[in-house]
Amino acid sequence: MTRSILTALALVLAAPAAAQTVAPQVAQLRDSALKDEHAWAITEGLTTEVGQRLAGTEAEARARAWAIAKLKAMGFANVRVETFDMPTWTRGAESAEILAPFPQKLVVAALGNSASTGPEGIIGEVVGFDTLADLQAAPDSAVRGKIVFVSHAMPRTQDGSGYGYFGGARRQGPGIASRKGAIAIVIRSIGTDHHRNPHTGVMSFPDGVKPIPAGALTLPDAEQLQRILKRGRPVTMRLTLVSQTGRGQSGNVIAEVPGLDPKLPPVLVGGHLDSWDQGTGAIDDATGVAIATAAAKRIMDAGRPLRTIRIVWFGAEEFGLFGGQDYFKKHGTEPHYALAESDFGAGRIWRVNSKLGKDREAEGKMLQAALAPLGIVPGALDQADGSDIEPLLAAGMPGVGLSQDGTYYFDVHHTPDDTLDKVDPEALRQNVAAWTAMLAVLAGPVETDPKQPR
Amino acid sequence: MTRSILTALALVLAAPAAAQTVAPQVAQLRDSALKDEHAWAITEGLTTEVGQRLAGTEAEARARAWAIAKLKAMGFANVRVETFDMPTWTRGAESAEILAPFPQKLVVAALGNSASTGPEGIIGEVVGFDTLADLQAAPDSAVRGKIVFVSHAMPRTQDGSGYGYFGGARRQGPGIASRKGAIAIVIRSIGTDHHRNPHTGVMSFPDGVKPIPAGALTLPDAEQLQRILKRGRPVTMRLTLVSQTGRGQSGNVIAEVPGLDPKLPPVLVGGHLDSWDQGTGAIDDATGVAIATAAAKRIMDAGRPLRTIRIVWFGAEEFGLFGGQDYFKKHGTEPHYALAESDFGAGRIWRVNSKLGKDREAEGKMLQAALAPLGIVPGALDQADGSDIEPLLAAGMPGVGLSQDGTYYFDVHHTPDDTLDKVDPEALRQNVAAWTAMLAVLAGPVETDPKQPR
Repeated sequence: MTRSILTALALVLAAPAAAQTVAPQVAQLRDSALKDEHAWAITEGLTTEVGQRLAGTEAEARARAWAIAKLKAMGFANVRVETFDMPTWTRGAESAEILAPFPQKLVVAALGNSASTGPEGIIGEVVGFDTLADLQAAPDSAVRGKIVFVSHAMPRTQDGSGYGYFGGARRQGPGIASRKGAIAIVIRSIGTDHHRNPHTGVMSFPDGVKPIPAGALTLPDAEQLQRILKRGRPVTMRLTLVSQTGRGQSGNVIAEVPGLDPKLPPVLVGGHLDSWDQGTGAIDDATGVAIATAAAKRIMDAGRPLRTIRIVWFGAEEFGLFGGQDYFKKHGTEPHYALAESDFGAGRIWRVNSKLGKDREAEGKMLQAALAPLGIVPGALDQADGSDIEPLLAAGMPGVGLSQDGTYYFDVHHTPDDTLDKVDPEALRQNVAAWTAMLAVLAGPVETDPKQPR
Repeated sequence: MTRSILTALALVLAAPAAAQTVAPQVAQLRDSALKDEHAWAITEGLTTEVGQRLAGTEAEARARAWAIAKLKAMGFANVRVETFDMPTWTRGAESAEILAPFPQKLVVAALGNSASTGPEGIIGEVVGFDTLADLQAAPDSAVRGKIVFVSHAMPRTQDGSGYGYFGGARRQGPGIASRKGAIAIVIRSIGTDHHRNPHTGVMSFPDGVKPIPAGALTLPDAEQLQRILKRGRPVTMRLTLVSQTGRGQSGNVIAEVPGLDPKLPPVLVGGHLDSWDQGTGAIDDATGVAIATAAAKRIMDAGRPLRTIRIVWFGAEEFGLFGGQDYFKKHGTEPHYALAESDFGAGRIWRVNSKLGKDREAEGKMLQAALAPLGIVPGALDQADGSDIEPLLAAGMPGVGLSQDGTYYFDVHHTPDDTLDKVDPEALRQNVAAWTAMLAVLAGPVETDPKQPR
């Protein structure tokens, strides 16, 4: 038995589930949300009428305009945008081709912040490494002037915990390769599928390290290159990764459900509006903003919550968490009652973590009890996460983490395959039900006859 | 209960399986083939060391050179190529973009024999049809000057029987659209997956019909375009499908296992060597030539069969069945004892059909009995098929059809996703076992001490 199972058992023995009762209003709001159509409407609308919306581009600006119109049409209050400037990176032509010993094309995508090869591409010998550690341990002489290839494979996990460690090939690999004198790097996509759709994602070069072209091969192509290298003959590749950098504008779209007591700190829920450029950003992260917004809409339609619910559709998450940083800069000193972000796809929620503070653990347990009927495992009472809310959490603010099942998330994450058809409407509704229950607990109770001042 | 189930039951009741006994040699050859490594070696080698091998191109010529070297190294006799000339079509740049009302890129691939738009592309309004019949019924005025879109969806079947009917959108759609004055056509890919990999395939324009650009959208993109059209506003698309036509050479690669009695007609087994240009042609049809060849190799290694086994790796199947036609032209008057072709992927064989003639039905039943232990359903005694052997079958020659499970075949068929990782080594071995048993029945018995003249 693993330590985490033992810990979970100990928690349950210490605090039997029956100790918590769920308010009838919370249960009713939760269960009626299992028929939600708002989240699907937002996901379908945003991915169809805008499509991809890369941070800092005119597509993201169109997405903000769409968001404002949608949030206003849904009846939210205080709909507004807080803009900010940011560096931009946009993709051009890209291709990879083995010239020798077995001429053939491979499918590649540039990583965000890759240097450009120019349209004519570059040609070099490929040197392969099974892991990032192997690259790190290699003498510079083995790498200098070559195209580095790192083939480390990320395993499939439910909680996405492999992404941190195995994603190092993408995040740190280019910097390490450049330091050792490589002319470019290609990695095995940080993904778990076997389709010819490469997984892009952001990376950055440390200060003082020369940017080099950096791309991700699809998993079938990475395995092909491994097979070719195993034949033991020198492998020559032509790599073309064209890109452009510049400056642009992004912004956070904000809307509210005003609380009965405006002096109380708000509950912030959100996701990010921007997406990568090759899919339509359905599971990353149209569903995230859709789930948070649908839950807030359901509370609003039921009446008036005690606390204000603030919805934030963050801009420019993918490209450096600029939206979260801008929100922190503008609102980081304001109190927030709780923070929650949905940004791990559209799989069912399987666990609830929270970090509301020592004095509010009863509230965390109330949340666990409210969510258990949805098949959600009570998790930690001292954990919460979310990329855009991270600066606020790091500053000590309370947060909730509704963990989505990520078993298949990295099949389509950051690929052209991130499209609407990957969203299961039933799982989406279970998410909305969980978020609605969470808001009913944290922002409630909901005054169903708002004419009566509380 | 369906008619086909009733028919199958009637067949079983009329001829109980126990009536057939299987020769120990056949059973032994069959069962030892479940450990086969030859088919994997051929599939892995051809897809890695050659990759794509479009008909009539230098890549297909490299594939023939690879095939000759491989077949010689495996010890086959009479290894040779029969070349022929053919018209060629090669793919250039391709893209599709919605310009209005919701600007976004779609993923498209040109169909084989598509006209070229030129690099600047063409712009037109999209008119959508749910089925090919709807297009056919439409007045010319609804189509003239527009880009036609046909969104008919092919269902998933085990035997691939949907491909004939639903594939009409690809085969006949472009001709029908052109006759009505369309400037181009895009279809929903003839496929069953939901990845951003379009399914190409050959089509042709009837005599006198002007070729127009013709492409296939991926399924997610086709559904996106349907959603956009449903909004009811005029949809404008820029379509770029660049291609080139010319003349080239292809060829059939032939090898033999000489029979003890060279006067007896040979058993012909094969698949096709050429592939589409975007994947590596793993399941279409590296596995086909691999399965047939591995089975022949296993018979050869066991001793000397009574009849000659002729292996044919046909050229240019995808582009108009040119290899099969050339073989028929050169060998159509020679008798063949039986014909079998493997060209439906790498799924397990689930059914055996045969058409050996009225006087050889006992042999067909012997074959059924020999294959039943592999979980293979006895099928018809008056059916056989195979695209390259079709001219010979049509001329009345005997044939066998070992039906592969095609439930997932059209997920990757004719896409960039047709790569080695889609091949299940266990299912591949079951195929080799079935083909080995088939050859042991039809070309055997195998003389295990060939020094003794029979």
